[in-house]
Amino acid sequence: LPVGQEQLKEAMETAVGDVERALDLVLPRPVGPEAPLFEAMRYAALGGGKRLRPFLVIQCGRLFDVGSAPLHLVAAAIECVHVYSLVHDDLPAMDDDDMRRGRPTVHKQFDEATAILTGDALLTLAFQILARPDTHADPFVRCDLVGRLAVAAGARGMVGGQVLDLRAGTYEQTIEAITRLQRLKTGALFAFSCEAGGIMAKAGPKAMQALTGYAHDLGLAFQIADDLLDVEGDPERMGKAARKDEDAGKATFVELLGVDRARSQAQHLAAQAASHLDIFDDRADLLRAVAEFVVTRDH
Amino acid sequence: LPVGQEQLKEAMETAVGDVERALDLVLPRPVGPEAPLFEAMRYAALGGGKRLRPFLVIQCGRLFDVGSAPLHLVAAAIECVHVYSLVHDDLPAMDDDDMRRGRPTVHKQFDEATAILTGDALLTLAFQILARPDTHADPFVRCDLVGRLAVAAGARGMVGGQVLDLRAGTYEQTIEAITRLQRLKTGALFAFSCEAGGIMAKAGPKAMQALTGYAHDLGLAFQIADDLLDVEGDPERMGKAARKDEDAGKATFVELLGVDRARSQAQHLAAQAASHLDIFDDRADLLRAVAEFVVTRDH
Repeated sequence: LPVGQEQLKEAMETAVGDVERALDLVLPRPVGPEAPLFEAMRYAALGGGKRLRPFLVIQCGRLFDVGSAPLHLVAAAIECVHVYSLVHDDLPAMDDDDMRRGRPTVHKQFDEATAILTGDALLTLAFQILARPDTHADPFVRCDLVGRLAVAAGARGMVGGQVLDLRAGTYEQTIEAITRLQRLKTGALFAFSCEAGGIMAKAGPKAMQALTGYAHDLGLAFQIADDLLDVEGDPERMGKAARKDEDAGKATFVELLGVDRARSQAQHLAAQAASHLDIFDDRADLLRAVAEFVVTRDH
Repeated sequence: LPVGQEQLKEAMETAVGDVERALDLVLPRPVGPEAPLFEAMRYAALGGGKRLRPFLVIQCGRLFDVGSAPLHLVAAAIECVHVYSLVHDDLPAMDDDDMRRGRPTVHKQFDEATAILTGDALLTLAFQILARPDTHADPFVRCDLVGRLAVAAGARGMVGGQVLDLRAGTYEQTIEAITRLQRLKTGALFAFSCEAGGIMAKAGPKAMQALTGYAHDLGLAFQIADDLLDVEGDPERMGKAARKDEDAGKATFVELLGVDRARSQAQHLAAQAASHLDIFDDRADLLRAVAEFVVTRDH
C-alpha cells in the first residue's frame, strides 16, 4: 500500500520537531548586549512554517542511510538560508510584507536594521554549520556542501531569482521567463535540499540524477500550486495576504496558463517528480507522497 | 634599514592590483536579465579603497611561503565580506550614507533592493570562493577557513558589532564597551585576515598567536586612528562625510580619551602590534610598516 497523506503529515511533523531542535542548538542564546539580534534570529527561524526543505533533506538522506544528526544539521543550515531569504524579501524595499506565517514580519516586529542584520547573520550561520566537523566526517564532502549551497543561494541562484522577480516589469513575461525565475528563486535551493543527502552518501551519478530530476519537477509543481493558492487561497489559512502577485503586476503561471491548465500542469509535474524515484525502493514512498502533497495542499 | 612608507605604498598598490584582478575573475559578468545585480556587485567590489585586509592576507601568507594564487583568492573572499558589510551599513535603515570612497553608495547609484541583494550575493560569494579546490589543496584547511570566516563575520562577530553600533544609545559608552564593539565590528575580520595565511600554512601555535596579537592591536589602532580622522580629517580626502559619529551621538575613543590621549594610545598599540612580529624575520618588515601606516595615514 502506498504511503498516504496521513502518514506524510506525521512524518513532516516529526521533521519540524527535529529541525527546530537543531536550530535551537545552533542559534545564539538571547543574552548580552547583542540580545535583540539573537532574539530576532530566533523569532525568524523558529517561527513555524512547513519546513519542507528540511523534510526533503532528511528523507533524501535516508534513502542512503545517512545518519540523523548530520542530516538535521544540514537541514538546519538550509532552513537558515530559506528564512534569511524570507526576512530580506519581506523588507519594505523589496516585497514590503507585514505578515509572514501568521505573525508580523521581522522588520515589523523589530525594525528594518535588525531585519537586514538578522538575514545577514542567518546566511552566515548556514555556512558555519556546514563547515562543522560533525556535519560530515569527510572535509571534501563539507566543502562540496558549502560550495553548492553558495551557488544555489547566490547571484546565479536564489539572489539572482529575486532580482528577476523585482524586475518583472522590465522583460517579457513568458512561460520560459517565469520558469527560469522559479528555477533560480526557489528551484536551486529545492534541488540542493534533495541532493545534499546524496552528496553526504557519495551517491553515484544515477542516484544523483534521480534526486535532481525529482527536485526540479517538485519545485516547479510547488510554485504553480503556490500561484493557484494565491488566486484561490484563503488568506487566513495561508497566514499572508493572497492575490499579492497580481497586485504587483507580475505574471504568474496561472495568469499565463489559466487556472485549469495550471492545475493540470502542476499535477503532471508532481507525477513526473515521483517517477524519478522509480530507482529507489519503498523508502522513497514519503517523497512520492510529498509530490502529491505539494499540489493538493490548501496553504 | 627598515622598510619605509614609500616601499609600503608600492607594495599596497601591487596588492590592490592583485586583489582587483582576483575579484574581476570571481565576480559574474554583467550580462543577461540579472545584469543589474552583477553590475552593482562589480560597482561595489571594484570601487577602490585601500584594500588593507587583502594586503594583510597576502603579507601574512608570505611569512609562511603560501602561494600567491591561493592568497589572492582568500584575499578576494575577505574583501567580498568587507564590501558587503559596507553596502549594508550604508543603507538608509542603518547608517544612511550617500557617499563611499568618493562615489555614491550602492543604494544611491542603483536602489535599495539592489543594494540589499548585492550585499547578500557578495557574502555568499565569499564562502563559494573559500570552498573552491584551488583555494587550498587540503579540504580540512578550506573548511577551517569557511568556519572561521563565518564566525568572524556572523552574529558573534561583525554583524553583532554592527548591532552594538546601532544600539549605542541604549548602553553606557565606556572604553570597555566601545573596545568590545570594535573587536566585533572590525577586529574579528582583521584577525581572520592576518590568521588566514597561518591557517593555510598549518603554522604552529606560536606563529598563530603572533598573528592574532598583531591583528588585535593593529585593528584597535586602526579604529582609534579612524576616530581621530573623523574629528580632524578632510572630508574631500576621505571620500565620505566627516564628524559622522559625533552627529549620531555615538561615543568614540576620541570623545572618551580626548585627542591627545587617543593619539598616544593609537601609537602605543601600533608599536605593540609590531612587537608581536619579533619572531618573524625581515619578511615581516612590510607588516611592521603597516602598523606605522594605520596611525599616520591622512584618509
